[in-house]
Amino acid sequence: MSDLCPFLIPRGFRFGAAKAGVKASGRADFALIVADEPASAAAAFTSNKVTAAPLHIDKEHLTATGGKVRVVAINAGNANCAAGQAGLDAARATCAAAAQTFHCRPEEVFPSSTGVIGVPLPAEKLIVALPGLAQTIGPESDHFNEAALAIMTTDTVEKTAFARIEVAGAPGEAPREVRIAGLGKGSGMIYPQLVPHATMLVYILTDAAVEPAVLNAYLQPAVELSFNRISVDGDTSTNDTVLLLASGASGVSIGAGNPAFATALQQVCSSLARQVVADGEGLTHLVELQINGAANDADALRVAKAIAHSPLVKTAWAGCDPNWGRLAAAIGYSGAQIDPEAFEIRFGDLPVCSNGGCDPEFDEAAAHAYLEQAQFSVTINLHQGTGSCVFWTTDLTTEYIHINADYST
Amino acid sequence: MSDLCPFLIPRGFRFGAAKAGVKASGRADFALIVADEPASAAAAFTSNKVTAAPLHIDKEHLTATGGKVRVVAINAGNANCAAGQAGLDAARATCAAAAQTFHCRPEEVFPSSTGVIGVPLPAEKLIVALPGLAQTIGPESDHFNEAALAIMTTDTVEKTAFARIEVAGAPGEAPREVRIAGLGKGSGMIYPQLVPHATMLVYILTDAAVEPAVLNAYLQPAVELSFNRISVDGDTSTNDTVLLLASGASGVSIGAGNPAFATALQQVCSSLARQVVADGEGLTHLVELQINGAANDADALRVAKAIAHSPLVKTAWAGCDPNWGRLAAAIGYSGAQIDPEAFEIRFGDLPVCSNGGCDPEFDEAAAHAYLEQAQFSVTINLHQGTGSCVFWTTDLTTEYIHINADYST
Repeated sequence: MSDLCPFLIPRGFRFGAAKAGVKASGRADFALIVADEPASAAAAFTSNKVTAAPLHIDKEHLTATGGKVRVVAINAGNANCAAGQAGLDAARATCAAAAQTFHCRPEEVFPSSTGVIGVPLPAEKLIVALPGLAQTIGPESDHFNEAALAIMTTDTVEKTAFARIEVAGAPGEAPREVRIAGLGKGSGMIYPQLVPHATMLVYILTDAAVEPAVLNAYLQPAVELSFNRISVDGDTSTNDTVLLLASGASGVSIGAGNPAFATALQQVCSSLARQVVADGEGLTHLVELQINGAANDADALRVAKAIAHSPLVKTAWAGCDPNWGRLAAAIGYSGAQIDPEAFEIRFGDLPVCSNGGCDPEFDEAAAHAYLEQAQFSVTINLHQGTGSCVFWTTDLTTEYIHINADYST
Repeated sequence: MSDLCPFLIPRGFRFGAAKAGVKASGRADFALIVADEPASAAAAFTSNKVTAAPLHIDKEHLTATGGKVRVVAINAGNANCAAGQAGLDAARATCAAAAQTFHCRPEEVFPSSTGVIGVPLPAEKLIVALPGLAQTIGPESDHFNEAALAIMTTDTVEKTAFARIEVAGAPGEAPREVRIAGLGKGSGMIYPQLVPHATMLVYILTDAAVEPAVLNAYLQPAVELSFNRISVDGDTSTNDTVLLLASGASGVSIGAGNPAFATALQQVCSSLARQVVADGEGLTHLVELQINGAANDADALRVAKAIAHSPLVKTAWAGCDPNWGRLAAAIGYSGAQIDPEAFEIRFGDLPVCSNGGCDPEFDEAAAHAYLEQAQFSVTINLHQGTGSCVFWTTDLTTEYIHINADYST
């Protein structure tokens, strides 16, 4: 979503990026998000037990500050993961330098990394680049966009999303605006399973004033229904992070249970999640799975994940092949409660399978034509109950193999 | 394994194949295994809840006969799955015709199918081919091999395995020989999870005399350590079947707990399982995973399966890329108990990762050269306990995508 509007950037933040020389390509690879004042923070991190060094530091820092962040320092090109003590040292050194540059405590710095795993992060490159980068950060949409571009790895486009809500003022006063903006990256190793749910990096900013605990209560359900409902390849990363910062610069306080804020946040999360999967490595089809009639929501998710991770289903989609038997097999091994003679499959509105067998109205040519679209939906009804979910995934193409099999470590 | 020796075919069986016109290619697609007398039978079937029609019939028939089979009737080119009542009717019609041809009860016929899912099986083509096929079956290795070839689908080679054991005779008598031979097929949709553990079809024959219940007690552990330890793509099929038949024609009775028989059966199962995965669709590398030091065997299997099903790991292998970070990520999300600072990865004997980070002796060029081999091993030690497993899998190549994405339904 490159539809950037300057009036949508939350107030109280500055953004920027520099070429620190971590990416082999020489492109911008070091981004900063700097809050004018310590911002309230809520975060979600990967459930992978092999967790990158910056995530360990992030958790430590959020605990130490009670959920306050001044500086988010993000590098691309190196995940700073599985690098032992050297990795932790590199993250801490970056935080110390950023703290000095921006006159804050090291604990108020939130480091993030994405890129190759197992190679020590050259922190000195980031540290050297910091003073110059500090001179160029700013609050405009151009600055925001620079940061969004710098954090990309195999991404082909930057991912941003925006929302705003109006909050009624005091009697006689005009309504006031709260802005939410997010930036994210991710294309491969995409199956975020965040706990309390987060190689996807997402930063969401708002100028509302929100206490950290309240912010967290808004973030978790929004994450569950967005980033935890997408998969490119089923590989849950070691670095997935979603960070939500609230600067308070709008002057509007948002307490718990504000439905307009919750909805706007959900929209930004859903938009970013869908942008991540839509940029999945090598994809030619973006697929929306709608699972209905499951015994419960967990079963609906089981079916969605089995389908989203089936190489045979994903390669059939790559070939626009209406081979629904592969879907039936995935439904069968998903672990969900099913009746093999009751489930139903549709491609868009087209009936494909009913009562567990070929639908009498199945029109193979029409189904093939439908699957030729760049984006399509597969709807499954298990007829077991009222459980449901919506899940986004991709096909599996030779280009995915090329991207990931070309020896370049 | 095309090393066919006529002296290794178990006595008491005849084999053959015909071109019934089910395969679009026009190749042989209908195979028979006929026992001279009702043979003792034990079987294992897929755990997929969407189960092909012949498997329903097989279970019914084994129950009805108390584990006796005269005729195994196998077609390739059509899985007879998700075809509703028409599928069941087609399987029953085939059994009735085979029973008439071979003068047995329909319940003594064991039907099997493999191929496309969701298309009704044209039973009439099989039925028409039966009388001619009955004239050509025979007990020689050539007949055996015809059957092994006819059941192939995307397989590039037939899969067979042989073993024999000598059993001491009565005092003063010469030792007597028991033969075991297996034939199988499978290349894609290969992740057998058989219950009591089986688009893989495997038939194992012995001329020992074994009661069905005893035969079953031999089969299940052999299956667990062979067919349930392989995966090409993680797609558990609707049709997987392993059938073990004992004709008794050797005149040698095998009771429970005969270690020589158990070992020979295990060798045949392991050989066939490895042949199936070695013929995995599009593979360029066959990979043996050895997981050691897990908290328990179940955890070792969790790690093996996470690695075997990671597109990022499998594409790295396709590129001979020693990117061990992808292995570390898969270990981390496997669900197994791990210490991220304790695990160790080796490629063959080459140290790659130790204490959860890059091993000081990691030699990238040597690792790359090792991974260029057509077959290699990846050894992981979690240092958590004594759980272990050996698992066989493949890389993921553009050829796999071509095989499965070319629209040909």
